[in-house]
Amino acid sequence: MTDWFAKHRDTLDKALDACAKRYSWSGWPESPSTKIHGEDKPAAGKADFEALLGGDFPLEQPAEAGRVGEEVSPYTGEPLGIRYPKVDVDTLYDAIDQARPAWAAAAPAERVGVCLEILHRCGEQLFANAHATMHTSGQSYVMAFAGSGANALDRGLEALACAHKAMADVPASAHWERNFGGDGAASLDKRYRLVPRGVSVVICCATFPLWNTYPALCASLATGNPVVIKPHPAATLPVAMVAKVCREVLAEAGYDPNLVTLAVDTREDPVALQLVAHPDTAIVDFTGSPRFGSYLEQNCPGKQVYTETAGCNAVVLESTHDLDATARAIAQSLCQASAQMCTSVQNIHVPAEGVRVGDTRVPLAEVQAAICRAVDGWLENPKRAATLCGTLFDPSVQDNVDRYRELAGERLLRDSAPYANPDFPNARTATPLVIAATGADREWYRQEVFGPVSFVIANDSAQACIEDAAGNARDCGAIASHVYSVDEDFIERAVEAYHAAGASVAVNLHGMPINFAAAYSDYHVTGLNPAGNACLADLAFVTSRFRIVQCKVMRG
Amino acid sequence: MTDWFAKHRDTLDKALDACAKRYSWSGWPESPSTKIHGEDKPAAGKADFEALLGGDFPLEQPAEAGRVGEEVSPYTGEPLGIRYPKVDVDTLYDAIDQARPAWAAAAPAERVGVCLEILHRCGEQLFANAHATMHTSGQSYVMAFAGSGANALDRGLEALACAHKAMADVPASAHWERNFGGDGAASLDKRYRLVPRGVSVVICCATFPLWNTYPALCASLATGNPVVIKPHPAATLPVAMVAKVCREVLAEAGYDPNLVTLAVDTREDPVALQLVAHPDTAIVDFTGSPRFGSYLEQNCPGKQVYTETAGCNAVVLESTHDLDATARAIAQSLCQASAQMCTSVQNIHVPAEGVRVGDTRVPLAEVQAAICRAVDGWLENPKRAATLCGTLFDPSVQDNVDRYRELAGERLLRDSAPYANPDFPNARTATPLVIAATGADREWYRQEVFGPVSFVIANDSAQACIEDAAGNARDCGAIASHVYSVDEDFIERAVEAYHAAGASVAVNLHGMPINFAAAYSDYHVTGLNPAGNACLADLAFVTSRFRIVQCKVMRG
Repeated sequence: MTDWFAKHRDTLDKALDACAKRYSWSGWPESPSTKIHGEDKPAAGKADFEALLGGDFPLEQPAEAGRVGEEVSPYTGEPLGIRYPKVDVDTLYDAIDQARPAWAAAAPAERVGVCLEILHRCGEQLFANAHATMHTSGQSYVMAFAGSGANALDRGLEALACAHKAMADVPASAHWERNFGGDGAASLDKRYRLVPRGVSVVICCATFPLWNTYPALCASLATGNPVVIKPHPAATLPVAMVAKVCREVLAEAGYDPNLVTLAVDTREDPVALQLVAHPDTAIVDFTGSPRFGSYLEQNCPGKQVYTETAGCNAVVLESTHDLDATARAIAQSLCQASAQMCTSVQNIHVPAEGVRVGDTRVPLAEVQAAICRAVDGWLENPKRAATLCGTLFDPSVQDNVDRYRELAGERLLRDSAPYANPDFPNARTATPLVIAATGADREWYRQEVFGPVSFVIANDSAQACIEDAAGNARDCGAIASHVYSVDEDFIERAVEAYHAAGASVAVNLHGMPINFAAAYSDYHVTGLNPAGNACLADLAFVTSRFRIVQCKVMRG
Repeated sequence: MTDWFAKHRDTLDKALDACAKRYSWSGWPESPSTKIHGEDKPAAGKADFEALLGGDFPLEQPAEAGRVGEEVSPYTGEPLGIRYPKVDVDTLYDAIDQARPAWAAAAPAERVGVCLEILHRCGEQLFANAHATMHTSGQSYVMAFAGSGANALDRGLEALACAHKAMADVPASAHWERNFGGDGAASLDKRYRLVPRGVSVVICCATFPLWNTYPALCASLATGNPVVIKPHPAATLPVAMVAKVCREVLAEAGYDPNLVTLAVDTREDPVALQLVAHPDTAIVDFTGSPRFGSYLEQNCPGKQVYTETAGCNAVVLESTHDLDATARAIAQSLCQASAQMCTSVQNIHVPAEGVRVGDTRVPLAEVQAAICRAVDGWLENPKRAATLCGTLFDPSVQDNVDRYRELAGERLLRDSAPYANPDFPNARTATPLVIAATGADREWYRQEVFGPVSFVIANDSAQACIEDAAGNARDCGAIASHVYSVDEDFIERAVEAYHAAGASVAVNLHGMPINFAAAYSDYHVTGLNPAGNACLADLAFVTSRFRIVQCKVMRG
C-alpha cells in the first residue's frame, strides 16, 4: 500500500502553513480553462458525467432497499434518471459497526493520509463533478468547477489540516516519573490513544453540496469516525461521486468501505431525522435551512452538532469614492449564482438622504438606479450572464421571486426576468429582483429570501443603517456583512456594531467577487449569530470529534 | 501596571512544554512541610484562616441580597460561622454585563497574564486555603495543601496553557492577495478577533472544591468570559478565597472585578439552575453528582456544558508478584480521603478461583484478608491514618456506610469504625467498610457509593472480571480503572476492554498513591462514559469557549 501521508505530506504542510498565516493559497486550480488543462481532461469529465445519466449509480452498499433518484437538471428541465441506493438505516448501521474498530485503531497519520488521497482523487474528478453540480445545483460550469470544486476541496483540506493539528497535539506516549516522598516513587510509561466519538452524519444542501461536505467528511473521518453522507434529493450526484471515491480509497487502504456511506432519500420520505436520532450517531454536520438547523442545535443533547444555515447578509453603503464601482461590486453579488450563495448580499442599507460621493451627496433614487444599472451591466453579455448567474436550482426559488414581485408592487426597482442562456434554451433562469424598502418593511427583509431578491433599504440615517444591518445580523443571522465608506470613523463604528452582533465584516471590497470566502484565510461562519454554530475551520470544528483514553503502566 | 504575562512567561512556557511532552512537572510545591516553607508562612496561613471564622467574608459584590453561610467543620462539628453574600441573580448579571466589553476587548495575552497572576496569588494563600479546605471538605491538612492546593493549581495552569495555545492558533492579522482573472484582483488586510461566548457558570463540588474550579475559571476567563462561581454550600470558603483573589487581581489590572463573582446559595434555596438557565449564560462547568451532571448535559441546548461527575472505579486483580504490595496499593486508595475522591477505587474484581501469585493460586478468602489487612496496616499509626483518611465531609457519607453495613450482613469483610484523630477528638471519621460480593450483587456496586465503602467482587473467571469491570465503566462511568496482572496477554485484553468502554487504565501501580492524577500528563476524565463529558485538559476543553470574527479591508 502506498504511504499516502508521505505522498501528500507537502500538501498538508502547505495547508498548515497557510492556515497559520492565512495568506492566499490553493491546492487546486480554480479555472476549468482548457488553456490550463488541455482539451482532453475537460472532455473526459463531461463524458464521465454523461455516462452516468439514466442509470444505476455505481455504488455497492449494504442495506440497499431499492433505488431512488429524483434529480432534474435546472439547465434542461429533464430528469437525470440516475438511481441511487436507498438504505435501510438499521441494517446500514450494523454494517458500519463492523467497519469501525479497524479504522478507530488506525494511526491518526494513516487516517489523515487516506483523507488526503480522497481529496486528491476528488480533485482528479473535478470536471465530471462540475457537470454533476451544474445539472443538480444549477451552478454555472465555471462556478461549479471553482466554488463547488476547487474552493470546496480547499475547505476540506483546511479542515483536515486542523484535525491533523489537533490530533498531533496529543503525543502517542510519554514517560513520567516522580518521587512521592514517604508514599513511594513511580516510573510510568504512558500511552495516549485518540478515540472517535461515533457515527458522523453529514447533511448536505442543494446549492453548494460539497462546500461543507468535504470539511465535515475530512474532520470526522480523519479523527476516526465513520461518515454517513445524506445528500439533498435535488443534488445527489456530486455527493455520490465523492462517496464513491471515499469507498474506493478506503478499500485500497485495506479498510472497510462502509466507513463512508451514502444515505439517499426523497422529499416524500426523508431520512435525516432517523439518521440523526440513531443512538450510534454522535456527530451531525448540517448545511441547509435555518429552521432545521436550529431544530438540530436544540434537539440533539449529547451529540456534537455543527451547523451552517443562512441569514440576511447586508451591505451598509454610507459613502464611496466611486459609486459605479461600488454598485458594480454589490450588483455582482446580487447576480452571482442567482444569489443562492450563503454569502450573497440581500439587504443594501442606504441613508435616506443619499450617499456621499466625493464632495457631493448622491440622492437615494440615483443610488438605487446605479445599483440596478450595474446589475444590467453584468447581464449585458449573455455568456457572462450565464457564467455569473447560473440557474435557479429549484422552482421554489422562482416562487420566491414571484411572491416578492407581487408584494413590492410600485416599490419594484428592477424586475426579474429569465435571461437567455446561450447553451441551454430551457434553463430555469432569473435575473435579480430589486425592491425599494424602508425600515417599515422589516418583515420583508429580516429573513433569508432565498434566490435573486434584494432590498435597497432607506434607513433614516447612516447610523440607522448600521443599527438595522447589525441588528438583523444578530437576530436573523449573517454570513457575509459589508460596509462601504470613505470615513474611517464610520467604518470603525460599523465594524464594531457588526462584531458586537457576532458578524464578520468586509470593508470596501471592489473589483473582486465580494461573495468570495477564502479557505485557509477567511473563517467562514462565526457561530455567534443564528446563521450557524460552526466555523470553517477553526480548532473548535475538530477538537470535539475525538476523545482521549490513556494507559499508564508501571515499569517493572 | 505590571506586565503579568511577561512576569509569568517562564511558568507558562514550562506548562506548555509539560503538556506537550507530558512529563512530571509542578508549578507549586506539594508539601506543606515547614522544612520547605519555614515556620512563618504555615503559621500565618493558619492565622489568616482563623481570622475569617465567625465573620462576614470580605467580599464586596453588587446584588448582595443578605448573607448566608452554613459550613460546619467535619473536624470540630462546629459551624464556621462565616457569612457570604447571597446574590440576586438578575442584578448580578446586570453588573456582569457592564464588566464584559472591556475584558472581551483585552488582548488574549493580557487576559492570560491576569489568570497567571491569579494562580500565582492563589499559590501564595495555599496554607490558608488548606485550612479552609480541611474544615469544609474534610480533607487532611496534607491532602488539602497538595491535592486541593498545588495539584489543583497545576490543573488550572494546564487548562490556561491549553487556552493560550488555542487562542495563539488564531493570528491577529494577515495579508491576503490574489488575482481573480477577469473578475479583478484583491489586496486585503485581515484582522481576526477572538470573541468570548458569554457568562461562564462554574458549579463546584464539596469534596474537592478547587480541582475543577481552577481549570474552568482559567479556561473561561482567559478566553474573555465573565465567570460566576457557585460553590457547594458545605465548602464555600476555599472557593470564596479564590474569588476574592480574582477580583483583586482584576481590579489591579484595571478591569471590573465583577468579571469573577461568587454566587453562594444554601441547600434549602439552591441557585444553580437559575444561573444555568439565565439567557446570558453560555458556558457551564459542573462537578458533582452524576444525576445533576447528566441533567445539565441533556437540558442546556446551545450552551457549552462541561461535566465531571463520578462512576464506580474498578480494580481487576488477576495475578501479582507480590500480593501484599498489591493489597497495600489498593488499600491506600480505599483509605485516602475516606474514598471521597473521584479516583477512589470502589470495586475490586477477583476471580472466584483466587489470584495467581508466582506459581501458586491464592484463594479468594486469603485475597480478601490481604486487602483488609493492608487497610489495617495503613491505619495503624493514628497520625498517618489522619493524614491519609481525613474526615467524612458530610453526615450523609456515614449514612452510606451504615446502609451498606446493614445490607452486607455476613458478607462484611471489614467493618468501618471511626478512627481517633490525634488533633481533633470530634472529627467525623470512618475507616473503610469492605464487603464480599459476587456478580449477583450488581445492584450494590454498579453505582457510585460515595465514601469508604468497597466491594471485593468474586467473578466467575478472570475474563469475567474484565467484562464486569469494563461493562460497569461503560454503563455507570469510571474515572480511574486498574488492572493488576503479570500476564501480558491478560493486561492487553483488560486494557482493550476498558478502552472500549471509554475508560483510561492504570496497570500494576504499586508503591505510589494510585489515586493520583498528574496535571500536564494524565488526561482526567475521558468524556466517553457516564462519569463526565469533559477532560482536564485537552483542546476540546478550551476551543469552544470563544469564537472568531474577522474584518477584511481592501487596501486603498
